[in-house]
Amino acid sequence: MRIRPLFCLFVLVILVMTGNPVPAEEGAFPVSELAKLDLRSRGLEIDPRAVFDPDGPSLIYAVVKVGATGSFVSPDGLIITNHHVAFGSVQAASTPENDYVRDGFLARSRADEIPAAGRTARITESFRDVSSEVLSVVKDGMSFADRARAVEKCIKRIETRAESDHPGKRAEVAEMFPGRSYWLFLYTNLKDVRLVYVPPRAIGEFGGETDNWMWPRHTGDFAFMRAYVAPDGSPAEYSKDNVPFRPRAHLRIDPAGAQPGDFVFLLGYPGRTYRHFSSHFIAYQEEVLMPWVAEWYAWQIDLMEKMGRGNHALALKLSSRIKGLSNTMKNYRGKLAGLDRLDLVEKRRMQEKGLQAFIQADPKRRERFGDVLERIDSEYGKLRGRARFELVMRYLTRSVDMLRVAGTLHEAAVERAKPDLERESAYMDRNFLRTRQRLLLGLKNYHEPADRLILAEILKKADALPPEHRIAAVDRLLGGRDFSSAGKPVLSALYDFTGLDRESFLKSAFEMSEAELAEVRDPFLMLAADLYPEYQSLKEVEKAREGALDPLWARLTEARMEYLEKDFIPDANGTLRLTYGKVEGYDPADGVFHRPLTTLRGVLEKTTGKPPFNTPPDLVRLLESREKAAASGSAPSDIPVCLLYSTDTTGGNSGSPVLNARGELVGVNFDRVWEATINDFAWSPLYSRSIGVDIRYVLWITREFSGAEALLKEIGL
Amino acid sequence: MRIRPLFCLFVLVILVMTGNPVPAEEGAFPVSELAKLDLRSRGLEIDPRAVFDPDGPSLIYAVVKVGATGSFVSPDGLIITNHHVAFGSVQAASTPENDYVRDGFLARSRADEIPAAGRTARITESFRDVSSEVLSVVKDGMSFADRARAVEKCIKRIETRAESDHPGKRAEVAEMFPGRSYWLFLYTNLKDVRLVYVPPRAIGEFGGETDNWMWPRHTGDFAFMRAYVAPDGSPAEYSKDNVPFRPRAHLRIDPAGAQPGDFVFLLGYPGRTYRHFSSHFIAYQEEVLMPWVAEWYAWQIDLMEKMGRGNHALALKLSSRIKGLSNTMKNYRGKLAGLDRLDLVEKRRMQEKGLQAFIQADPKRRERFGDVLERIDSEYGKLRGRARFELVMRYLTRSVDMLRVAGTLHEAAVERAKPDLERESAYMDRNFLRTRQRLLLGLKNYHEPADRLILAEILKKADALPPEHRIAAVDRLLGGRDFSSAGKPVLSALYDFTGLDRESFLKSAFEMSEAELAEVRDPFLMLAADLYPEYQSLKEVEKAREGALDPLWARLTEARMEYLEKDFIPDANGTLRLTYGKVEGYDPADGVFHRPLTTLRGVLEKTTGKPPFNTPPDLVRLLESREKAAASGSAPSDIPVCLLYSTDTTGGNSGSPVLNARGELVGVNFDRVWEATINDFAWSPLYSRSIGVDIRYVLWITREFSGAEALLKEIGL
Repeated sequence: MRIRPLFCLFVLVILVMTGNPVPAEEGAFPVSELAKLDLRSRGLEIDPRAVFDPDGPSLIYAVVKVGATGSFVSPDGLIITNHHVAFGSVQAASTPENDYVRDGFLARSRADEIPAAGRTARITESFRDVSSEVLSVVKDGMSFADRARAVEKCIKRIETRAESDHPGKRAEVAEMFPGRSYWLFLYTNLKDVRLVYVPPRAIGEFGGETDNWMWPRHTGDFAFMRAYVAPDGSPAEYSKDNVPFRPRAHLRIDPAGAQPGDFVFLLGYPGRTYRHFSSHFIAYQEEVLMPWVAEWYAWQIDLMEKMGRGNHALALKLSSRIKGLSNTMKNYRGKLAGLDRLDLVEKRRMQEKGLQAFIQADPKRRERFGDVLERIDSEYGKLRGRARFELVMRYLTRSVDMLRVAGTLHEAAVERAKPDLERESAYMDRNFLRTRQRLLLGLKNYHEPADRLILAEILKKADALPPEHRIAAVDRLLGGRDFSSAGKPVLSALYDFTGLDRESFLKSAFEMSEAELAEVRDPFLMLAADLYPEYQSLKEVEKAREGALDPLWARLTEARMEYLEKDFIPDANGTLRLTYGKVEGYDPADGVFHRPLTTLRGVLEKTTGKPPFNTPPDLVRLLESREKAAASGSAPSDIPVCLLYSTDTTGGNSGSPVLNARGELVGVNFDRVWEATINDFAWSPLYSRSIGVDIRYVLWITREFSGAEALLKEIGL
Repeated sequence: MRIRPLFCLFVLVILVMTGNPVPAEEGAFPVSELAKLDLRSRGLEIDPRAVFDPDGPSLIYAVVKVGATGSFVSPDGLIITNHHVAFGSVQAASTPENDYVRDGFLARSRADEIPAAGRTARITESFRDVSSEVLSVVKDGMSFADRARAVEKCIKRIETRAESDHPGKRAEVAEMFPGRSYWLFLYTNLKDVRLVYVPPRAIGEFGGETDNWMWPRHTGDFAFMRAYVAPDGSPAEYSKDNVPFRPRAHLRIDPAGAQPGDFVFLLGYPGRTYRHFSSHFIAYQEEVLMPWVAEWYAWQIDLMEKMGRGNHALALKLSSRIKGLSNTMKNYRGKLAGLDRLDLVEKRRMQEKGLQAFIQADPKRRERFGDVLERIDSEYGKLRGRARFELVMRYLTRSVDMLRVAGTLHEAAVERAKPDLERESAYMDRNFLRTRQRLLLGLKNYHEPADRLILAEILKKADALPPEHRIAAVDRLLGGRDFSSAGKPVLSALYDFTGLDRESFLKSAFEMSEAELAEVRDPFLMLAADLYPEYQSLKEVEKAREGALDPLWARLTEARMEYLEKDFIPDANGTLRLTYGKVEGYDPADGVFHRPLTTLRGVLEKTTGKPPFNTPPDLVRLLESREKAAASGSAPSDIPVCLLYSTDTTGGNSGSPVLNARGELVGVNFDRVWEATINDFAWSPLYSRSIGVDIRYVLWITREFSGAEALLKEIGL
C-alpha cells in the first residue's frame, strides 16, 4: 500500500519512456487499408503516405518478393533478406572446393556477384479489385465443380489480359476473402538476382533446428543479394551485360536499432493464414491433417538422418530436404500444442453457437445464413470420410521424387495439348518455364535409396486403405497381392529400369506428347499414366468441394461481420501487407519472461563448437575480446543479436524489414516464437511474437567479422 | 539518447520502490556475526536483537533442526517445515489402506497426530569458541594421522563433558574453519515429534524430479509437525502422556506475503559449503568425484526404474531411494554444468597465482605461507592417484545394503569393546542408539534383487582396479578368478545364505561381540570381517590426509584473509546460520528472465494428470473456479505459489523460514535454482537464487483445499 503513489509515477514513467501506450493489434493489413488505420496515433512518426502512396514514391516500392520477402537498402538494387531465404541459391552455387554454405560468401566486386539460380524479385506496382468480374461468371444452376472451374478460368483470363496490357509485368489475381473478393496485383518481375554477401552457416543458421521456432535466439539470419536489369532498365534473364536495378525507393538504416517499447512495423508478403475459417476447418487440421503430415515427415526425417550418419557427403545432400521437412513438422507440432493449450476449436465452437443464435433470432438473417454452418459441417464430414485416401494420393507424388517427375511430365503432355487458357495454371505458357525449372532444381538432391524407401512406405499406406477407398492403379501395380509379398520386386522393376533420374532425358521429355511418352515405356511414366484418371477424379472432387465451400465461406464472413459488428482484415495470401506492434517480450509460461532483446554474450553462452552451435573460431575470438572490453568498460554495453516484437506475421514474412517509427530499418524478420506458431489460426497480444535479427548484429558481423566495408559504404554507413 | 533524463528518473523510482538499494550478499552468517552485519542498513526493520539475543527471547529460538530446518509457528510447539523433510516419516506411517503419501494427512485432533518415527527437533541454546582447547592437543612432531586422532578425541571429550554438565542437552563441536576454529554448540533435543498436516504428494511434491532444482516452480513443499515433551517439560521419547512443547519463541505469519524487491532473511541449518577451499579441491570434485558418483547413481537409478516398471508395489518401495539418488545426481550435474560454464577452477587458479605472488613479495609471508599451495597440490596429487580405489571401497558399503549392515555390525562389535571415548563417534554410548535406529530404518525398503545387481556392478569395478590398488578381500572372494567367471556363484553364495535381511536377527546382532558374530558364519559378516583390515588402513590414510590438510587449510585461510584484506564467513557446517537478500528474479540465460513469483495459473498450466504433474482433481476444480472468478474480477489477482530470493543457502536450509523485514514468516525455503547448485563452491548475486513456497499458497491450500481451520486458528489467522 505504501508504494501506491510511487507506483503511479512508475507507470507514468514507463508510459512516457515507451512512448506508445497503444497495444499491438491483430492484422496483416493490405496497404490499401492503411488510411483507415491511423498509424500516427499508433506510433508512426512519419506521414503514412511515406509508407504507401499509390501516386508517388513510398516505402512499399523498397519491398520485394524473393520467395519470401526482402528489401532494397541501396540505390543500386542491393537487397537484404534472410540467410534461410537465400540458402537454396547459396547451396546451388557451392561446390566441395568453394563451400559457400559452410564458409559464407562475400563478393569482392560487383563482377564477383554470383547468379542466384531460378530466383526472381517482384515489386508490387499496383492492385485493383476485380471481384465483380470474377463473381459475374458464377451462374445459378452450375454444379459446384463447374462453378470453381468458371472462377478459375476467369482469373486466368484476367491475368493473361493484364500481362498483355502491361508487357514485362507479372499479373496475379489473389483471393482476398474466399468466394467473396478478388484483387488483381501487377508486379515488376526482376529475373537476374545475384548473391552479394552471405555469412557462414554457423552464423546465419546458428542454433539450427534446435532453436528454430524458439526464443531466446542468436541467429544471424541475414544475407545480401542484388537485382540486375538489362542496360535499358527492363527486367531480363541473367546476362553479364546487365546493370544494377535502380529501385524507386530504398530503405534507410538506423544503426542505433530499436529499444524495448518502440513502435515497429513490417512490410512483406505473408503466405497464408486461416483466421476467418470455421471450427470445422480448424478441427480437421488439428485432428486429421497436421498429425498425419507431422508423423509422415518425422518418419522421412528419421530415415534420411539414419542414412546420412557416417556419410558426410550424403548427409549434406539430404540436409536441405531434412531442413524443409523439419521446419514444417516442428511448426505443426507447435500448432498442435497451441491448439490443445488454447482449446481453440472448442472456443470457436462456442463463438459459432452464439453466431447461430444471432442468425436464428431474425427471420431475414435466418434466410440468408441459417444453413451456412450446417452445410460447412456436412462438407467437412464428407472430407473426413475420405481424408486418408486423399492424403495418400497427394503425398504419393509430393514425397516420391520419381513419381512427382513422372506425374508432372504426363500432366504436362496432356495439358500442353489444350489451348492455353484451358490448361492447368502450371502448364500455361506464362508459367511453364518456371514449372520446368523448379522440377529440375528439385532433383538436384535426388537420392535413389531414400526415394525407394519413401515410395515403399507410402505404398504400404495405400495398401492399408479400406475397400471403398482403394487406389486402383496401386492395386494393379501390386498385381492383386499385398505389399509385403509384392513390394520388393515392384520397387526393383520401377527403380532399376527408370531413366527419369537423368537430367538430359528430362529436358527433352518436357516437349513430348502423351503418345511419345508412352513409347518410352519408362516404368514410372507408365505408373503415372495409370494413376492419371484417378488424379483427375480427385481433382474433380476437390473442385466440387471448393465450389461448394467458397460461397459458404463468403456467407459465413458476411454473417460474422454482422454478428461482431466489424470489418475484417483479409487473411494473408502472399500479397503485400503491413503489420505493426512494439518491441516487447512475453511470458511463455508462468514465472518466465522472454526479454525482447538477446545479446552477443548469449552467442558465447550457446557455443559448443558442434553444429548447430559451432560459432566460427574467428567470431569466438572477436566475441571474447569484446566481452573483455565491455567488462573493463572500454566498449559499449552488449550488442543486441535478435529482437522480439508483437506484429502479426506468418511464413512469407521471412526477410521482412522491421521498420521503426521513422520508417528506418532496425531489423530483418525471420521467425516466430513457439507459442506463435498458432498465429495462422489465432493471434494474441499475449504471446504472438515475431523474431528478427537486430540491425546492430547485422552491421557488427558485416563490419567486424567479414570486413565488408564497401557494402557498409553502399548502404550509407 | 533522448530517453536519458527519463531513464535516470526511472532508476530512481525503482530504487525508491524496492526500498533497498543494497544488493544481496554472500554468506551464511553465524548468528554471533550479526552485530557486525548492521542488518538495519540492509533492510531489517526490527531491532537485530529481536533476531538473536543471547540473553533474551529472540527469533532463533523458534528455529529447529529436524533433519533439515523447521520453525515454530504456535505457542504449542507447532512446526512448519517442508513436505520433503517430513516425507520419510509420512512414508513410514503409511500403509496400503492409509496411504498418507498419496492422500496427505490431517490430524483431526491432537490425539490423532502420528509419531514421526526416529525424528528429533533440536533448538540451539548456546555456543562458544573452544578452538584453543581443541588446538592445544596438537603437538610438534606428531604424525599427521596422530594429529587428526588427537583433535577428534579432544572434541569427543568436550562434547561428553558438556552433556554431563547440562543433563538432557545435546552437545556438538563444529569445525568452523578447518584446522583453525572450533565451536561447541548446545542443543535442546526434543525426541517426540508428530505429524500434524501434510498435503498430498501431488501438491507437496508437484513437479517431482522433473522440476527438482528448477524454476519456475509450483510445489506446495510444506508440512506441519508438532514437538512434544514430558508433562514436566523435559525432552522425552514418545508417550501418550506427553504434552505439546512450549517454545521460547514462535514466528508470526504475514498472510500478505512478500513482494518483488522486499528484504528477506532466512534462519536455518545449512549443511556444507566449500567456499574457502583451493582450486585443487574443486578440480578434484569436478574431474574425479562428482562425475564418478553421478554416473554410478545414474546406473542405479536406471536399474531400479527398470525393475519398477509394471510392478507398482515394487516401484513404490524403490521410489524413496530413487528420489534420494536422483536428487544428488541432478545436483552434481547442475554443479558440473555450472563449474564448466563459469570456468571456476581456472578462475580460482588465477586467484591463487595472485595470492602466491603476494606471498612471495614479502620474506615473512614467504616463510609463513610459501609452501601452502604447493603442499595442498601434492596432497591432492596423492589422492588422485588412488581415487578410484577409495571410491570403490566407500561405495561398496554405501550402495550395497547387505554390506553396509554387515560392516556396521562388525565395526560396532570392534568399537563397542573399547572405552567409550576411544570409539568411533557412531558407536559411543551417546550415539549408538541412533546408529542402530538409522540402520534399521534404512532397511525398510530393502529389495534383494536390486541389492544383488548393485553388488555385482561394484564388484566389477573392484575387479577392474589396477594391480597397485587391488582390494585383497575382493580378490579372495573371487578366488583369484575374474568377475565374469566367478561373479555368479559368489553372489549366490552371499545372498542365498545370508540372514542379515531379517530384522529380528539384526536387533540381537547389535549386542554381539566379534567372536559371537564370527560364530554366526553369515557370508556377508564373514566378508565384512575380511574387508575390515582394509577399511582400517583406508581410514588411516584418510586421517593422515586430514591431519596434513587441516593445518594447510588453516594457513591458506589466513593467507587469503591478508591478501584480500577481509574476514571470512565460515563455510556452512550444519550449525545455525542467517542469510539475507531480496525477493528477486534472475536471468538463467541471455534473453530469459525468471520472475520471482509463480502463481496458481501455473499449477493449471503444468497439470497433465500424470505424475509428477497430477494435481488432485479437487484442487483442479478449485483452481478453475478461482481462475474464472479472477477473470471476472470477483476474486483478487493471482495467488503466488513459489518465490525466489537472493539468499545464500545450501542443503540443510530445506524448511528454513523465509522472514520479512519485520521478522514475519512469508515463505518456507525448499530448493535452489539449477544455476545455484554451484552455490556450494561459489555464490553470485547474478544467479544464486533460493526457492520457497509462498506463505499465501501454504495458507490457501490449508484453508481452501484441506479445510484445516483449527490449524489456521492455532497459527493466529
